Amino acid sequence: MTNPEIRRATAEDVPAIVDFLADDELGKTREAPGDPCYAETFAAIAADPNQFLAVVDDGGAVVGCLQLTFIPGLSLKAMWRGQIESVRIASSRRGQGLGHVMIDWAVAECRRRGCGLVQLTMNKSRTDSHRFYESLGFEATHEGFKLVF
Amino acid sequence: MTNPEIRRATAEDVPAIVDFLADDELGKTREAPGDPCYAETFAAIAADPNQFLAVVDDGGAVVGCLQLTFIPGLSLKAMWRGQIESVRIASSRRGQGLGHVMIDWAVAECRRRGCGLVQLTMNKSRTDSHRFYESLGFEATHEGFKLVF
Repeated sequence: MTNPEIRRATAEDVPAIVDFLADDELGKTREAPGDPCYAETFAAIAADPNQFLAVVDDGGAVVGCLQLTFIPGLSLKAMWRGQIESVRIASSRRGQGLGHVMIDWAVAECRRRGCGLVQLTMNKSRTDSHRFYESLGFEATHEGFKLVF
Repeated sequence: MTNPEIRRATAEDVPAIVDFLADDELGKTREAPGDPCYAETFAAIAADPNQFLAVVDDGGAVVGCLQLTFIPGLSLKAMWRGQIESVRIASSRRGQGLGHVMIDWAVAECRRRGCGLVQLTMNKSRTDSHRFYESLGFEATHEGFKLVF
């Protein structure tokens, strides 16, 4: 692996990101690559200064992505929270330490934006990923509830 | 209880909201009512169209609060997510069904904004609240990880 750059995603990166989302045990049944819905929501992400959709660019090839949301809140002495969603790595690049690089970058970016904590939720079936986040100092202190319409 | 109105919080509501946050088993040690940090972050919340800090106004008395964040994301066919944080009810008004009214309102508001799911995390020590959300149809499918700086 060369030294990958983590940068803000552009509209041109959306197809690659959707391919990552679909190339996943949970995602393969719930994405529709090519659907125009992705470009529309990408425009909303790009227009929101509290969203940062990032890609890992390795010499022009997009090999990973994650999304940060910066959330202002009054609790915990009005602490901003950084939230990580949709972390994905190209299947050909897994097991090479790229996830560690990406999460280190995400945590640093949240600090830079003034956040006092970083949070994420993960499906309970992704047990390997649980150990990964614990190894980086994250603690599974919360239950994550979802209500799907 | 009269028929409470759920409305967007104003700067004048911030002291009441901070009092709720501090009047809580976990919150009592981690808030600082009167600190100017709250007004500063409130301004960021009010300026962000994807934040909705709501209060429950019962005839002029603020008796509860919650915060919604509307998050555009590419996963799940570019579904927007509604996220609920900082749900609090005045101690004098607990056990009267107000929480149910507030979460029903929050879910309806997320639907109105085009979200396809609603999510929240809750400290694992709040076991009574877990049962409450499960009774409303939420499922604890995820682990909630936090990294506090």
